Amino acid sequence: MHNIYVIKIGGDVIDDIPGLDLFLTHFCALEGRKLLVHGGGKLATVLAGKLGIPQKMIEGRRITDEETLQVVTMVYGGLINKQIVAAMQAKGSNAIGLTGADGNMILAHKRKGDVDFGFAGDIDQVDLGFLESLFEKDMIPVVSPLTHDGKGQLLNTNADTIAGKLAEAIAKKYKVHLVYCFDKPGVLKNAGDPGSLIRELTSGDYQVLKDKQVVFAGMIPKLDNAFAALGEGVSKVSIGNAKELKSLIDGSHGTLLKSG
Amino acid sequence: MHNIYVIKIGGDVIDDIPGLDLFLTHFCALEGRKLLVHGGGKLATVLAGKLGIPQKMIEGRRITDEETLQVVTMVYGGLINKQIVAAMQAKGSNAIGLTGADGNMILAHKRKGDVDFGFAGDIDQVDLGFLESLFEKDMIPVVSPLTHDGKGQLLNTNADTIAGKLAEAIAKKYKVHLVYCFDKPGVLKNAGDPGSLIRELTSGDYQVLKDKQVVFAGMIPKLDNAFAALGEGVSKVSIGNAKELKSLIDGSHGTLLKSG
Repeated sequence: MHNIYVIKIGGDVIDDIPGLDLFLTHFCALEGRKLLVHGGGKLATVLAGKLGIPQKMIEGRRITDEETLQVVTMVYGGLINKQIVAAMQAKGSNAIGLTGADGNMILAHKRKGDVDFGFAGDIDQVDLGFLESLFEKDMIPVVSPLTHDGKGQLLNTNADTIAGKLAEAIAKKYKVHLVYCFDKPGVLKNAGDPGSLIRELTSGDYQVLKDKQVVFAGMIPKLDNAFAALGEGVSKVSIGNAKELKSLIDGSHGTLLKSG
Repeated sequence: MHNIYVIKIGGDVIDDIPGLDLFLTHFCALEGRKLLVHGGGKLATVLAGKLGIPQKMIEGRRITDEETLQVVTMVYGGLINKQIVAAMQAKGSNAIGLTGADGNMILAHKRKGDVDFGFAGDIDQVDLGFLESLFEKDMIPVVSPLTHDGKGQLLNTNADTIAGKLAEAIAKKYKVHLVYCFDKPGVLKNAGDPGSLIRELTSGDYQVLKDKQVVFAGMIPKLDNAFAALGEGVSKVSIGNAKELKSLIDGSHGTLLKSG
């Protein structure tokens, strides 16, 4: 059974050009089959600002109106995705940049509910066969946080969620290690103190931390996705600093999630 | 031997949303293996204008400075490419959007010469194996006019040239019909008179028209690419109106190019 790494890199790493390049060097050096999901960083907000498109956030999530969808399609699907692909090709890794619309890889629907998030997509289905055909050719999918509804509509979808759902789909046939990389050393007991790293976190402990509001804001959807993936057959889930990818893989750094 | 259609859609069609959708309906209905190359339209110029990035053109070609490269990467590789892919998926066609960097499909080098065109790419190599693997899975490549140099640099590359070079590469193993679609009925004797359509054009006739300046501006690189493809094993090259795709394929409309 093949081991497959599903690695997600987050916002702040995307905005830091030398940091991103170093991360990609480590990612490309990682042996075996792998897939990269990238977030959007601050570039979309910057571009929307320059174009005079007001950005509205609710509960830390962007409201994706039609103009904002165009901005994120340009920034996530175009600029960030293609720059990563070109950088990986230069490092000898055969990257292929994809949104969920490409190869019909990820089908989603426009989010329903009390809050109108606009063109935000919730994932219905991942096409594992398409991903397998890429892995078999030693290609490395580089996935941007965009999906589609199969009716012609692109949708903005959280990159943490995409990483989790892709990992779950791949876990049906492969052994998957899902790694969330960001700019912190992992899950912290005290958000301001990098020394307060929690090395192992069970879903029970997580519930307690959430209740005490030790874990808050963007960490909640990230960890919800991470624990959901663990419950859906993903073998291993780690969270930590993008600069320490190798150590996150071997377990010598970061937070390792545990069921139960 | 499989027949493969390589179809290029040009600028004005991209800007016309209902026109593009109608074209895509006809393109998706076309039986057999096929590939679509899209141009950039006016959107990149409009976006550059909104962002206050001055656009410089020499001989009808855009000078691609670093900021302009970012704009075209967003508009060509992101917005236009992904909107076409999502629209094709809705029509039941399994499209996959690509730049030349994805799957290392098209290697190019930064253009050299007296005029500094900036990050403009001239094509060195097309990876036919990658394209074949997509055709074999009934996927339809949708190619945006961007290439890379294999050293991490994305490059802006003319869509007519990409269509010609992809057609030439595919022609090494398949029978290729290359079709350039735009907003005119084909090659005209009199640019202002759609009734002056030339139904068949030999390379000899083309040389005469060029000398007399009957053919000029953007038509020259298009026809140069088209005749080059014919000389490099492409079976059939047609040029005509994007609204008449079916008739361009069966030869009842447009201009058919002939060697000699």
